[in-house]
Amino acid sequence: MTKTASLTANQHRFLQNLFPGTDYLTTPEQMLVFETDASRLTGVPLAVVRPQTEEQIVELMRWAHTERIPLYPRARATNVVGLCVPEKPGIVISTLKMNRIIDVDADDFVAVVEPGIVTGDLQKHVEAMGLFYPPDPASFGISTIGGNVATCAGGMRAVKYGVTREWVLGCRVVLPGGKVIECGGRNHKNVVGLDLTRLMVGSEGTLGVMSNITLKLMPKPEATASLMAGFSSLEDAMGAVSSVFRAGILPTALEFMGAEVLDCLARLTTVPWPQGDNGARAVLLFRLDGSEAALPHDLKRLHTALQNGQSTPVWLEQGIGSEQEEPLWEIRRLINPASFYVAPNKISDDVTVPRGRLLTALLGIRRIADESGLTILTFGHVGDGNIHVNVMHDASDPDQKERAQKAKLAVMEHVLALRGTLSGEHGIGLTKAPYVHRQLGEEERRIMRDIKSAFDPHHIMNPGKAF
Amino acid sequence: MTKTASLTANQHRFLQNLFPGTDYLTTPEQMLVFETDASRLTGVPLAVVRPQTEEQIVELMRWAHTERIPLYPRARATNVVGLCVPEKPGIVISTLKMNRIIDVDADDFVAVVEPGIVTGDLQKHVEAMGLFYPPDPASFGISTIGGNVATCAGGMRAVKYGVTREWVLGCRVVLPGGKVIECGGRNHKNVVGLDLTRLMVGSEGTLGVMSNITLKLMPKPEATASLMAGFSSLEDAMGAVSSVFRAGILPTALEFMGAEVLDCLARLTTVPWPQGDNGARAVLLFRLDGSEAALPHDLKRLHTALQNGQSTPVWLEQGIGSEQEEPLWEIRRLINPASFYVAPNKISDDVTVPRGRLLTALLGIRRIADESGLTILTFGHVGDGNIHVNVMHDASDPDQKERAQKAKLAVMEHVLALRGTLSGEHGIGLTKAPYVHRQLGEEERRIMRDIKSAFDPHHIMNPGKAF
Repeated sequence: MTKTASLTANQHRFLQNLFPGTDYLTTPEQMLVFETDASRLTGVPLAVVRPQTEEQIVELMRWAHTERIPLYPRARATNVVGLCVPEKPGIVISTLKMNRIIDVDADDFVAVVEPGIVTGDLQKHVEAMGLFYPPDPASFGISTIGGNVATCAGGMRAVKYGVTREWVLGCRVVLPGGKVIECGGRNHKNVVGLDLTRLMVGSEGTLGVMSNITLKLMPKPEATASLMAGFSSLEDAMGAVSSVFRAGILPTALEFMGAEVLDCLARLTTVPWPQGDNGARAVLLFRLDGSEAALPHDLKRLHTALQNGQSTPVWLEQGIGSEQEEPLWEIRRLINPASFYVAPNKISDDVTVPRGRLLTALLGIRRIADESGLTILTFGHVGDGNIHVNVMHDASDPDQKERAQKAKLAVMEHVLALRGTLSGEHGIGLTKAPYVHRQLGEEERRIMRDIKSAFDPHHIMNPGKAF
Repeated sequence: MTKTASLTANQHRFLQNLFPGTDYLTTPEQMLVFETDASRLTGVPLAVVRPQTEEQIVELMRWAHTERIPLYPRARATNVVGLCVPEKPGIVISTLKMNRIIDVDADDFVAVVEPGIVTGDLQKHVEAMGLFYPPDPASFGISTIGGNVATCAGGMRAVKYGVTREWVLGCRVVLPGGKVIECGGRNHKNVVGLDLTRLMVGSEGTLGVMSNITLKLMPKPEATASLMAGFSSLEDAMGAVSSVFRAGILPTALEFMGAEVLDCLARLTTVPWPQGDNGARAVLLFRLDGSEAALPHDLKRLHTALQNGQSTPVWLEQGIGSEQEEPLWEIRRLINPASFYVAPNKISDDVTVPRGRLLTALLGIRRIADESGLTILTFGHVGDGNIHVNVMHDASDPDQKERAQKAKLAVMEHVLALRGTLSGEHGIGLTKAPYVHRQLGEEERRIMRDIKSAFDPHHIMNPGKAF
C-alpha cells in the first residue's frame, strides 16, 4: 500500500508547508494520543495533520492519492472497535480544528456543521433555539458529529427517532485525488440520483473525508417524562417490553439492565429498587416526550400498559421533567464504573437482534456466561433489540482471558443464529473485521469493495477497516 | 446495448420455457399496457415476463447479463416520470405476481413482503394487527412496495415519519448475472458494512431486481385529528407554517393549497372555507396523531399556535377521528379532478426547497405563471418543502404548449437557485434525466455510474433512466 514506512524529505516538506506550525505533528510525544482510540489498540502514524479548511484537505487528498499514502481521519476517537487506529503507516487527519457551526436555520430546520463539532455542544446550541437533534450516542458529550456520521451512531432515543442516518441530509466529501462532491443538501425530501449521502453514513472513513455535514433538525419536544420499573425476572421484563409496544406506545427510549448489572450497581451506589428475595432482577427504564399538556396522559397510559400486561412490575418510579427524571438516568450512567467491581477487564460488544428475539438472545447469553464461569453484563437499548454485552474477566489470568474470548465468540454465533447483527452501533473497525464474513456474503463484500474503489481507487482511506 | 431489436428463436424459446403460459407475453395486444406508465411516454418491449419466484428472476438475470438484453422492472407503473418505460428494446419484468406478504411479526416489528404487494393492502393488513407502516404516497391505494422502495416514495406523513427510506430495513436483490445479495435484515439497528439497503432505495430499478423487502413497522398511533385553516394571503399561510413549527409542534402531515387550487376546487364542489373579498386565498391542512387522551390537548396547542402567530387564519375547522376528519381530506383528494376545469393538460413537477424558502419559491412560481399567461397550481407537502407544481395548458395549442414548457423550465431554474431539488418524490426517470446535470456535478454522476457498474457491469438494468 505505501511506498515507504517513513516519509521522504520531500513528503515531509510538502506536509509542513500545507499544515503550518503545530498543525503538523511528527514527534512520538506529539503523536502518542493519535496512535490509538477507545479500543486501546495502537498503530504508529507517519505524521498527524490538523486541517483548518477544506482547501487543505483537498491538497492533502490530491497528494496522498498520488503518493499512495494511507490516510486515517479521526475526531475524538471515542470509537471502541479500533476504527481510528493507523494500522499501516500513514497520515492521521485530525478534524478537531474544523469544529465550526456554519449555520443553524430555524426555518429550514437544518444545521450545517464542520465534522469536528462535539455532538453535545451542537445539541445545546440548537436546543437554545427551540430546535432538536435527536441522535444521542452515549458518548454525545465527548464525540463529534463527524465521528457519529462516519459510524452511523445510535443512542437511546433511536427507538422513536432512529439513528444518525435518519438525520443527515447531506455532506461535502473530499475524495482521494482532491475532487469534492456534494451529497444531498438542505432539502428534507430529495430523490435525485443514487443516495450517496447515506452511503457516506456509516462508511467508517473508508470513502473520503467529510468537510461539512448538513443535519435535519426538528422542533424540540416541549417536555419529557421517565419511568423506571423493576421486575422479578428477565422473562417478566421482556414480557413488559412486548406489552408496552402492543399497547401502541412508542417510547422515546427504552433501556434495560440485567440482574448482573443490578448487582454491581448495588455495590457502587444506593439503588432505588427493592433487593433480596422479592426484589427486582431486571429493570426497564422508559422515556417519553411530547407536549406538556399531553405528557401526563401518556405517562398514565404507559403505567396502565405495564400494570395490565402479563407481567406486573414489582416496583416502579416515575418523574416528569428533567429534575425528577435525572436520578433515574444517573443510575443508568453508572453501569460502566460499577462494572469494574466485577472484574478489571471487559470485552464489550453491541450485538443486535430482531426485537422479538430479545429474550432468547438474553437467555442464551446467560447460558454462555454459566458455561464460561464468567460474569457477562447485559444492558442497553432493548427498544431496538440492541444489547450491550460486557464479558467481565481478569486479563492478567491467561485462562480467564481465553474463556472471555471464547464467550465473546459464542455470543456472536448465538446472535447470528437468531438473525441478529454483529454490531448495532459501534461498527466494525479493526476488531470486528475478522468476523464480517460470518454476516455478509462474498458478493455483498465484493460490491462494497467495488463501491469503495469508485471513491478511492488506490484504497488509501482507512485501510484494513470495516469490510 | 442490445445485439438485436427483436428476440432470436433461441432467446424466445428460453423465455418461453422459463415463464410458462401467460407469464410470457409477446403480442402487441398483450404488451400494450407494458409500453407505458403514468408519464404516458411509450416504448416497445421485446417481451414481457411475469416471474412468480426468485429462482425465475435469477435465471432471467443470468441470461440477460450474458445476452446483454436490457431489463425493465415494473409493478403498477404509477410513476409519472417515465421510470417504467422500455425506451430501448428489452424485456419488461412485471413483479405483480410476486405480491405475497411473507411475514408480519408483531414482536420484531417488521414485515417481509414481495415487491408486488400494493402498499395500501399491506397497510390495512398490518393495521388490523395494531401495527403501522407510515409512508403514504398519494398512490398508496394502487402503487406497490417495490415501486415505493425503488423511488423512495414520500407522502403526506413524511413530515413526522420520514420517507420510504426510513422504513426499509433490508432487501434481497437479484443482480445481473444471477447472483443474489442480502442487504440489511430484520434488525432495527445495523452498522455492518456499507449501507447497500439505502443505496437500493430510490435507485429506480437501475441496480438489480428486489425479490423481497423487509420493512420496519411501528405501533399504530391510537388516534388522529385534523385541522384545516384558511388564510387571506399566501404570506399569511406561510407565516402560520413557521409559527406552528416554532411553537415546537411537529405535525404528522402539513398540506398546502394555493389560491388557484382553491378556485378550481370551488368549481367542482362545495368548499367549506369562505370565498370572496374576505375569503381564504390559501389553505393549510394539518394532521396530528398520538394517544387518544393526549390528542385533544395537542389539537388545542396547534389551535393556540395558529391564533397567536403573526398571521391569524380567517377560518378554521377541525375534527378528531376519521369520521370527522375525512371530509377535510376528501377536498385535498379532489385537486387532481378539479385541475382539469382550468385546462385539459398539465405538466406536473414535485420540486422541493429548504423549508424556510417556501414563500420565496411560491411567489416566484406565481410570477412565472403571470409571465407565461398560464395558470400554475401549487399545492402539496409544505411541511417538508415539497411543492407539487401543475402547469395547466391546452396541449393542442402549440403556443400554449411551448409556454408551458418554458414555464416548467423557469420553475426548475428558480427552485435550483433557492438550493432546492428537482424532485422530492417522483424521481428522475426519463423525463427529468436531461436536467439532472443542473443539480448534480460531474464527479457525483461519475461515482453513481461507477456504483451502477459494480452492480450491473453491462448496464442492462433500466437503461436511460435516473442519472
